[in-house]
Amino acid sequence: MTSYWNDFPGIPEALERVSGIIRLSTESKNPIIAKGLDSLFSGKGKLLRPGMFLLAAQFGKPQEKHDKLAASLEMLHMATLIHDDVIDDSPLRRGLPAVHTRFGKRDAVLIGDYLLSRCFLLTAEYTSPQNAVNLGHLISVICTMEIEQNNDRWRNNISLRSYLRKILGKSALLFSLACYAGAYEAKAPKNICELLRRIGYNIGIAFQIIDDILDYTGKEDLVRKPLGNDITSGLVTLPVLCALPLDRTGTLRKIFSRDGFTPEEGKQILTLVTQSGGVEAAGKYAEGYTNRALNEISALPPGKNRDMLDTLTRRLLIREK
Amino acid sequence: MTSYWNDFPGIPEALERVSGIIRLSTESKNPIIAKGLDSLFSGKGKLLRPGMFLLAAQFGKPQEKHDKLAASLEMLHMATLIHDDVIDDSPLRRGLPAVHTRFGKRDAVLIGDYLLSRCFLLTAEYTSPQNAVNLGHLISVICTMEIEQNNDRWRNNISLRSYLRKILGKSALLFSLACYAGAYEAKAPKNICELLRRIGYNIGIAFQIIDDILDYTGKEDLVRKPLGNDITSGLVTLPVLCALPLDRTGTLRKIFSRDGFTPEEGKQILTLVTQSGGVEAAGKYAEGYTNRALNEISALPPGKNRDMLDTLTRRLLIREK
Repeated sequence: MTSYWNDFPGIPEALERVSGIIRLSTESKNPIIAKGLDSLFSGKGKLLRPGMFLLAAQFGKPQEKHDKLAASLEMLHMATLIHDDVIDDSPLRRGLPAVHTRFGKRDAVLIGDYLLSRCFLLTAEYTSPQNAVNLGHLISVICTMEIEQNNDRWRNNISLRSYLRKILGKSALLFSLACYAGAYEAKAPKNICELLRRIGYNIGIAFQIIDDILDYTGKEDLVRKPLGNDITSGLVTLPVLCALPLDRTGTLRKIFSRDGFTPEEGKQILTLVTQSGGVEAAGKYAEGYTNRALNEISALPPGKNRDMLDTLTRRLLIREK
Repeated sequence: MTSYWNDFPGIPEALERVSGIIRLSTESKNPIIAKGLDSLFSGKGKLLRPGMFLLAAQFGKPQEKHDKLAASLEMLHMATLIHDDVIDDSPLRRGLPAVHTRFGKRDAVLIGDYLLSRCFLLTAEYTSPQNAVNLGHLISVICTMEIEQNNDRWRNNISLRSYLRKILGKSALLFSLACYAGAYEAKAPKNICELLRRIGYNIGIAFQIIDDILDYTGKEDLVRKPLGNDITSGLVTLPVLCALPLDRTGTLRKIFSRDGFTPEEGKQILTLVTQSGGVEAAGKYAEGYTNRALNEISALPPGKNRDMLDTLTRRLLIREK
């Protein structure tokens, strides 16, 4: 298990339980499923979504039975990773070969489906029906936004609004549900649940913007996937949108004045975005959403739970140790 | 809607409602999802699984709210069809271009996921938790058996037992759940629910065997997909297993004495199976499971519900009009 949570009292133990639940409820005698999932488990994810769920639950009366829902959120996340990697043709995940790299796309689609079904099963069995419904809704929005993103590949008429819509589906709604459902299941007061929903939402938006920035600036061994993958596969993200008005050479605007762009131009954009300061400008947006989250966190009841959520947010989004 | 059910009193109306629920609960503003699903809807499926659910429900006290679960079974079936076609590279479905043929594999995977999520949602919202859990289990078995099937491609050491296991996951368990859940939700007596589970199971096995036979003998316009698809894509099904001891030329056994087979040999097997009588022998198995189902149906309480299930079974499996 990750050491990310070591200084959050109680969370590492709870996440150990969550990991155990994930392993147990995805256990399969089929060697391909077993090996495929094992490679994901050993990739040492941070268990961010269950971790946030557990932190949020502490604003109510957390019980061990809530670990099941925390586990199902991570399982959903893992299922989307497997299908995403198939869709994006990404060879690596969490520093290891992606499931489809090892087992082919056919089985990767099915292992993703398997994981989704186990996630659903766990939710149906142990969650309030309302959160099972929320989870179903969430998955359908995630899929819709992914389709929208695919459809926007190699297009350059992407608005900030449509970018934000997509990252909402890609990340923010799952973070938001994790925070909300944690508080809701633990019977926290309604206003706290709603506040946590917004906190998760803003953390999620900032998190995805930073992820999109890291695709331009990250060190490959830290990001653990090839750099520049977005733009060279046709995806216009925030750093590009921010670079457009900043590019002094005019080349970027020239590319964007035409209809769509080519893979060759994609490589050009990659260089131009970094040179023009698009990355820094995108960083400002991430900062904005981070600050919104931190402000909302300061409206939570004071105490160690609030402090932990504040620490997590800074660690995650400002990369404070 | 299909005319398949015209002489089953009450069922066409109920299936109209089920179709409406499917359309409503899969509705999407995303044009790709909307068009992708629309092409499936207009392919005029028989709505067999919801139809069987509704017939089974009549052994209890059926209510309109049960239509939702009937709809979710068809949605699950449709989701597996979309993913199956991606996995099998099948260009046609229900006589029309498959979803991936029109929208590419990326979006087809996601449209399948979308449909799965809407199926979960409907189940979580309107079903007894037990049947939502059953559905989750079912999906994971379906995925596992599909993976097993993929893994067995181009292998020729397939036993009858392993073939039956795979078609269980591919078809029979969904038929079985449809019959069981219909009766269960309508609060039919426990022994009737169990009997219907077995009936669905045997119908499902026979149905899949017949489907596998049609891949050898069907008329393309009836089957609405290319013939010989199974063996030329590496899948050994029952007609092959049955042909092995019957083939007088010895060529089939020669191919099967080696480890695995090639695409070229796949084409050879296609011809040999038809010539050797493997198809007829496989038909005997289908007959056996059909008769088991009919016997079990005769153990149901007499009356019009039993008669309808008997008629459906004969129509489906013996192709009686």
